[in-house]
Amino acid sequence: MHKGFTLWFTGMSGAGKSTISEIVFERLRQAGAKVELLDGDIVRTHLSKGLGFSKEDRDTNVRRIGFVSELLTRNGVIALVAAISPYRSVREEVRANIGAFVEVYVHCPIEVLAERDVKGLYKKALAGEIASFTGVSDPYEPPANPEVTIDSSTEKIEESVEKVWRKLTEMGYIGL
Amino acid sequence: MHKGFTLWFTGMSGAGKSTISEIVFERLRQAGAKVELLDGDIVRTHLSKGLGFSKEDRDTNVRRIGFVSELLTRNGVIALVAAISPYRSVREEVRANIGAFVEVYVHCPIEVLAERDVKGLYKKALAGEIASFTGVSDPYEPPANPEVTIDSSTEKIEESVEKVWRKLTEMGYIGL
Repeated sequence: MHKGFTLWFTGMSGAGKSTISEIVFERLRQAGAKVELLDGDIVRTHLSKGLGFSKEDRDTNVRRIGFVSELLTRNGVIALVAAISPYRSVREEVRANIGAFVEVYVHCPIEVLAERDVKGLYKKALAGEIASFTGVSDPYEPPANPEVTIDSSTEKIEESVEKVWRKLTEMGYIGL
Repeated sequence: MHKGFTLWFTGMSGAGKSTISEIVFERLRQAGAKVELLDGDIVRTHLSKGLGFSKEDRDTNVRRIGFVSELLTRNGVIALVAAISPYRSVREEVRANIGAFVEVYVHCPIEVLAERDVKGLYKKALAGEIASFTGVSDPYEPPANPEVTIDSSTEKIEESVEKVWRKLTEMGYIGL
């Protein structure tokens, strides 16, 4: 039914990574796929407690998620990752290690993120109250060649999910 | 051919966890099984860099290995773990989370370990030069009810491997 691969959602906080990845996860699970969702929060609890938000710590966090995704992928399991993962070079490193890697860039203009501000973080960050906040006081490096790009400010969630699903089918990872 | 399960080797440094687990790993791999070996060194590099040897840090290390083993196990993959994992309660916690958990206690009397002393660590530890050295300056709590007990001071390696293999077959984890 499917191959092992890693589907990696990158993007700024609040852009929609978790929401979209959860829907894709449920759809895959209902189709009978072997699939795991490594969401940023789960990972911070189970793999990366104690790490902070310096570039080094963020890179370590991404490498750990990459290591676990690689173990799953090479055993035929689908690893879904939703993590800000702001630095391009370490994402590329993970991609090279895993091979079967599909990158989804979940974009949303910062004005819209600040307006939504579900967790109230952008307001604080823009007021200078949060150090190392991605996209405000810390860099976010968008992917150069993501397999899928989503703009959550203009697309409906179902459209975004459909784009991801179509790409996975086209690439031969699902629906075999 | 096999179910997903975790085969967890616990015991003091130098007792033979890595050696035995590597042979079991190769044998499973050659039989076509989906299997991963999470050895202490691999784990310290990829999951637990930065953790020390306090009880808290050791427990965190074991929990992380347990988390990854659980992901593999519930997707039908065999997770082999070789880690000192000196504290009983956290091993029991991992066992409860995973369910399909087979514990192998690799025992060897400390006199024999000190005599072998492959890495030259016991000499130093016994001279008081290494703080938190398991079995010397730090506790090792043997399992109360391990599925397999190995004494590497009296058994040949092939015998130990055979005991593990037989138990896995008896329990219905392999050779289905």
